[in-house]
Amino acid sequence: MTKIVVLGAGVMGSTLAKVASENNNVLLVGSPLDNHIIDAIENQSPHPDLDVSLPRNIIAIRHDNLNQNQLSDADVIVLGVSSPGVTWALDTINRHQARPNIVALVTKGLVSAAEAQCAPQTYAEVISSQLTEPTGRIVGIGGPCIARELALEYPTRVSFAAKDKSVADDLRRLLTTDYYHVTILDDFTGLEACAALKNFICIGVSAMFTAYKLDDGYAKNPVAALFNQGVHEIAVLSQWIKASAKDNSDAAPAEQHVDAAFDLAGLGDLHVTVGGGRNSRLGRYLGVGRLLRDVLGTDMRGVTVEGVDTGKQLLPGFRAACTNGELKETELPLTSAILDVIEHNYAFSMNFNQLPH
Amino acid sequence: MTKIVVLGAGVMGSTLAKVASENNNVLLVGSPLDNHIIDAIENQSPHPDLDVSLPRNIIAIRHDNLNQNQLSDADVIVLGVSSPGVTWALDTINRHQARPNIVALVTKGLVSAAEAQCAPQTYAEVISSQLTEPTGRIVGIGGPCIARELALEYPTRVSFAAKDKSVADDLRRLLTTDYYHVTILDDFTGLEACAALKNFICIGVSAMFTAYKLDDGYAKNPVAALFNQGVHEIAVLSQWIKASAKDNSDAAPAEQHVDAAFDLAGLGDLHVTVGGGRNSRLGRYLGVGRLLRDVLGTDMRGVTVEGVDTGKQLLPGFRAACTNGELKETELPLTSAILDVIEHNYAFSMNFNQLPH
Repeated sequence: MTKIVVLGAGVMGSTLAKVASENNNVLLVGSPLDNHIIDAIENQSPHPDLDVSLPRNIIAIRHDNLNQNQLSDADVIVLGVSSPGVTWALDTINRHQARPNIVALVTKGLVSAAEAQCAPQTYAEVISSQLTEPTGRIVGIGGPCIARELALEYPTRVSFAAKDKSVADDLRRLLTTDYYHVTILDDFTGLEACAALKNFICIGVSAMFTAYKLDDGYAKNPVAALFNQGVHEIAVLSQWIKASAKDNSDAAPAEQHVDAAFDLAGLGDLHVTVGGGRNSRLGRYLGVGRLLRDVLGTDMRGVTVEGVDTGKQLLPGFRAACTNGELKETELPLTSAILDVIEHNYAFSMNFNQLPH
Repeated sequence: MTKIVVLGAGVMGSTLAKVASENNNVLLVGSPLDNHIIDAIENQSPHPDLDVSLPRNIIAIRHDNLNQNQLSDADVIVLGVSSPGVTWALDTINRHQARPNIVALVTKGLVSAAEAQCAPQTYAEVISSQLTEPTGRIVGIGGPCIARELALEYPTRVSFAAKDKSVADDLRRLLTTDYYHVTILDDFTGLEACAALKNFICIGVSAMFTAYKLDDGYAKNPVAALFNQGVHEIAVLSQWIKASAKDNSDAAPAEQHVDAAFDLAGLGDLHVTVGGGRNSRLGRYLGVGRLLRDVLGTDMRGVTVEGVDTGKQLLPGFRAACTNGELKETELPLTSAILDVIEHNYAFSMNFNQLPH
């Protein structure tokens, strides 16, 4: 049987461990922040953040109980951490000299390029350069996937992508279950870029839920108009990020592509992200005119909002690209409005007149 | 000043009359079913179905008070009726020998081709052939547009399309206001097809709201997965309808197109349609396993569900195209599942395994 190691026992890592355990041997390794979770799983209690019990065939261990050989014979390693856990996860792989056939990546984000005038890089690009044993066999995972729903075995459909499509296909065969449905997308960098950008764009779309109130709820037209605009801006930004990516070997001819922005990792994931979660919550506060620093200092104090981090990484390259003409700011009014919030603490303002004709 | 006549005083016709009245002279003509609405407007009461008062500069008249010259000098005629009113509206135009510069079309639907093996036609195509004074100057209107929200002056963004793009541009100049934002789409038949298909596809997407319940609401992953699939199926079906359209003069080279399915008339309008309304309501009943005939005979007795009508018109051509290979049924599992409900009264069943890889 294939051995799959999941690093990180948070809601997403633990849920993927459950999915993987249907057809594989699974070791779930808690990060230094996950000791209480590992203890709960060992005691056969439900996962404290998922409120779902994991299958007993999953072996769960604390990070400090990990032995050398437990990682070195892994066929697949899943990075199931959120952004703050990436350093620990990479360090763990490198320290144990693991050489898995596949590294699967759930964590999404952008990192500003060293040269400020360039487009940001995706996590996938950065991570592959930080592995001691460099692997091109990284599989990105995108698409609508609220962890608890998946842990409850409600169906969803996600996209896998890799520079070498057959690697994504290999992982698909290992992970597909009756409720976890996988499509292969022929656009690795596009998937990674869209999956990060949707958190950022979600903030502006979600502001519409509170900006235009009706007696019986919220006005749906403005939400839909900005949802559409958001998908189109994700497409423009991800094309820009792809064009700047140092390794373009995965770029198939344009006509063969389903654009990731218009598929599960883009519009599909934006759909669930706008429906709830921290990025959407921030947007709803901004929609009534509150300022970012005020919200992050009070109601959302201490909460990590990934879309804000993504915006910060996007900023220098975006400003430079608008100046040098690589990007047209008039085509990206939503991006521009969210970045003004993040950079200047301006009130969020989306004048529909600014939307392109 | 430009004279705009709106035929049909229902929620959509009356709302567009309000929008048009910002910069034009507007005559609002009630259909034979709208006498009570016209009476209310004349009495300066709120529109009974919108619960919004219309501006006083709109002249509202009953259908039987319409004089010959009131239509013959119209610069623009807006067909603001729903499907059952189309015959009355066309008859009114023809009887009064009106020759407007522009006919704008809100009504959306498909009509089975005379040859059963062909793709259905859009309303726009059929209507232009039924006008005594044939006009190529028809402008289709698509995109997210809940009438009451627009009447309350909440912002939205819609697409106009015409075979001759400059005609759409002319109408845009007349109708744009601070809250009604118009983009021009270079794909007339595509816009018309998408605007009809979204009602049909909405039924299947909305079934996911009730098929997978959570304690605190509904599972969002299945909705998003089928929303994404629905947009892609609208794209496939609208391409098929476009390819079969007798007049393809409006078809710009593919690379110049924003595909209507992935824009306001497709994904944007599907977003609001799934959020509420009759098509979505039907879908939510079907999601718990109820049968179409049961729902339409009880809870939704007497309610016109446009998506069901669209499905009926789609059926013969769809079955023929799947047989002769013009369409691949494996690429259209959602369409196929909704058509099985309409044709055979089957319980709605969407096995995610059937979704293409």
